[in-house]
Amino acid sequence: MSSRPVARLPRGLRDTFAGNVVARQRMIDTIRGVYERYGFAPLETPAFEYVDALGKYLPDGDIPAGGIFAFRDEDSSWVALRYDLTAPLSRIFSEHRNDLPIPFRRYQVGLVWRNERPGPGRFREFYQFDIDTVGSASMAADAEVCCVLADALEALQISRGDYVIRVNDRKALNGVVEVAGLPTDEQTSLTVLRAIDKLDRLGLEGVRQLLGAGRTDESGDFTEGAHLTESQAQRIIDLLSVKEDSRAKVCDRFEEIVHGSAVGQEGVAELRQIDRFLTAAGYAEDRVVFDPTVVRGLAYYTGPVFEAALTFEVADEAGEKRQFGSVAGGGRYDYLVERFIGEKVPATGASIGVDRLLSALEALGKVDTQDSSAPVVVTVMDKDRALDYQKITFALRGAGIAAEMYLGDGNFRDQLRYADARGAVVAVIAGSREFESTQVSLKDLRLGRELSKQFTERQAWLKEQPAQVTVPLESIVPEVRAILARYQ
Amino acid sequence: MSSRPVARLPRGLRDTFAGNVVARQRMIDTIRGVYERYGFAPLETPAFEYVDALGKYLPDGDIPAGGIFAFRDEDSSWVALRYDLTAPLSRIFSEHRNDLPIPFRRYQVGLVWRNERPGPGRFREFYQFDIDTVGSASMAADAEVCCVLADALEALQISRGDYVIRVNDRKALNGVVEVAGLPTDEQTSLTVLRAIDKLDRLGLEGVRQLLGAGRTDESGDFTEGAHLTESQAQRIIDLLSVKEDSRAKVCDRFEEIVHGSAVGQEGVAELRQIDRFLTAAGYAEDRVVFDPTVVRGLAYYTGPVFEAALTFEVADEAGEKRQFGSVAGGGRYDYLVERFIGEKVPATGASIGVDRLLSALEALGKVDTQDSSAPVVVTVMDKDRALDYQKITFALRGAGIAAEMYLGDGNFRDQLRYADARGAVVAVIAGSREFESTQVSLKDLRLGRELSKQFTERQAWLKEQPAQVTVPLESIVPEVRAILARYQ
Repeated sequence: MSSRPVARLPRGLRDTFAGNVVARQRMIDTIRGVYERYGFAPLETPAFEYVDALGKYLPDGDIPAGGIFAFRDEDSSWVALRYDLTAPLSRIFSEHRNDLPIPFRRYQVGLVWRNERPGPGRFREFYQFDIDTVGSASMAADAEVCCVLADALEALQISRGDYVIRVNDRKALNGVVEVAGLPTDEQTSLTVLRAIDKLDRLGLEGVRQLLGAGRTDESGDFTEGAHLTESQAQRIIDLLSVKEDSRAKVCDRFEEIVHGSAVGQEGVAELRQIDRFLTAAGYAEDRVVFDPTVVRGLAYYTGPVFEAALTFEVADEAGEKRQFGSVAGGGRYDYLVERFIGEKVPATGASIGVDRLLSALEALGKVDTQDSSAPVVVTVMDKDRALDYQKITFALRGAGIAAEMYLGDGNFRDQLRYADARGAVVAVIAGSREFESTQVSLKDLRLGRELSKQFTERQAWLKEQPAQVTVPLESIVPEVRAILARYQ
Repeated sequence: MSSRPVARLPRGLRDTFAGNVVARQRMIDTIRGVYERYGFAPLETPAFEYVDALGKYLPDGDIPAGGIFAFRDEDSSWVALRYDLTAPLSRIFSEHRNDLPIPFRRYQVGLVWRNERPGPGRFREFYQFDIDTVGSASMAADAEVCCVLADALEALQISRGDYVIRVNDRKALNGVVEVAGLPTDEQTSLTVLRAIDKLDRLGLEGVRQLLGAGRTDESGDFTEGAHLTESQAQRIIDLLSVKEDSRAKVCDRFEEIVHGSAVGQEGVAELRQIDRFLTAAGYAEDRVVFDPTVVRGLAYYTGPVFEAALTFEVADEAGEKRQFGSVAGGGRYDYLVERFIGEKVPATGASIGVDRLLSALEALGKVDTQDSSAPVVVTVMDKDRALDYQKITFALRGAGIAAEMYLGDGNFRDQLRYADARGAVVAVIAGSREFESTQVSLKDLRLGRELSKQFTERQAWLKEQPAQVTVPLESIVPEVRAILARYQ
């Protein structure tokens, strides 16, 4: 007995059952419609690739950590499950660039895998849904990313005002680092960006400590700071204090702060261009704002960065209300393709976290997890008449109605319970009496459930009868349709 | 330079570009519609699971071969990419059986991975699309598998007569092994089944040799035989010689052959029941036949087995005409869940090889790889007017028409080439002259392509003009719609 395997999943993985598969599929279809309206074309790449193509580097010989699932292929080379959809895009563009239409505009929806510590709501396998434009340096491409994200969220019935697209620019941020008198190497820049990224959680004072000597949190743990001087740190703090609704005004303030830094001015110029495109396309500050505090984690961004955040409040694990937060992010990454071909190729795009967005829609009550595929269940009162029940089932199917004959060996009560568990709207019931008079009974299970909520069991049974009608066998299709129509 | 990674994929993996993604998606949607009409509900499971749950066993310590991609999880346990969708189903049923509606009827479409030697048309990652009913011993469930496969193929426009669902029964086959006087252990049974499975390729005489002393192939390689006596082998050969169109007659012949074997008679009784259900549902021998030569490879089948084969001919690699062959298979597997819970749970189902079926549809010319998402391309003749081109683009998008502004830096000729490469139907063209008179030109690219086939380049250019119309900017939406409508 002990040699039997245990039926369980590794941590951080999960199964998805009917209603949720349907809801996710519906969401993906809606987003796809928006992406296609913008002219992005579908692409699929394999689940795993060479590790070097994915862009992570391996400690010698050993299985690599670094957040990916890696293993050796038959020829001993290291391969790994993709951890995002941008790395495969860079590989595919580099590999096929002579045959692809350029700019290469693709969408891809697919699973990605992260070998990270799972937690509540944190999974090691999840869906991303990306759009990217590779081979365009135009800020129109970046502006478009903002528009497509806004349109996608609205297509999912998220009201304007319940979300915001926040835009910033890495060059502009680097300009601030430069005018603060800091070295402009990647390391310094990352340290500063990382401190800024904590603004949400730690507030201005916390960020100031991280930029300076360091910060001791409530538990007494000390985080080493970036050791900026006070006047250096002040430049950053000035930036983070910019609160302007108008995109043009954010650019003005930004420009003052980065005055004297060429890269900073370039960044602000990018933002101004994006503003122009957004405004011409009719996307005002009620949809897209400029926010100097947006960083986005990935080191590879080189210009504009984007974040789609949901601004309505939900209760967190501790029961405290907080904004739902980011459901999509992206930016311009002009050097990812260069890794392969030694030549800079401008690229920009964004990624929607499908599962996170789905849970946001759930929080908003905008997800119908009703399994639309729930069939009509043809119950079997008399096993000797299986062929007759099957004929009824196929008559319904032939009319395009999802239907199944009960195939288990439960009694009638079990069968109705089964129909309920399947989310069925209609149960077909026929015993000898019905067959003899070429009739069938149809039970409206939802109406039955509604009614039964109000009564004790016996009363419910009596009361439920109106939810059941007896109709001629020959008119079963229109009669079933009539009941289904009540719920559409 | 040499430190740059090479942009390439491991062998046996592939990317799928726009037209093919769309074609596969369309195919999957069609099959899903049929599966849902039969009352199957969607399920998704993770890409990888514990190896022991997937049901393969590991050689001590080392990375296992056996056709799977396995690796160690963070806690050192072995996990592997799923190699089919049935093993995860057995796990999920065992894990959640107290909360699931039973019979549990689910469909699942997803990637599976096989660590096998890739070859032409053989990939290590491919899609399967499965239906299964777990918890039903009724032959109605098996009959239904045949019907749903036939309906799915017809929904994909494969004509009746171009496909056939072949059915056999493992118990009936075991009955033949028994009456041949052979031991009924799994090993003998598998050896015999394996020989039968080669009938297609080797013919009756080849199978007879494999059942006897052995067989030497054209290259001189010798395959050890099963060492049946001549009279034992003859029983099998008798069976394989059964050629009857009528399912009832196949059952009669089968019954004669297995006379005296209880398990054999049980198998034939199963077939007779399936025949009754099929006949009552109206699925005659033009769709579903009984074929004693069908084996299906997997060892875990315990009763009826199914195979959907395409019977039209295609040229193989050697240029010889042969039937396209199997695109789906399945059967009853009453012991897979028992592995986990120590209790027999009857189950039956089938799996469609999505990619193989797609290539069959291609061979039949029934795949439209036209990328339905191909956008209207708004060309950019005057970069200073980018905002105006963008407005046109958004006006089209706002009307639900897929559109994009050309975002690259190519000249006008490059832009038209780009539009062609995208499969665009319409290009929007506007220079200063057009803008001044608030007009735009619309080019019907498909018509242009058609016309240009007939002329030299210069002539084509002249001749193409009729494919281009100039319209008022304000009526661009209906005018574009009118051109798109030509191709719908």
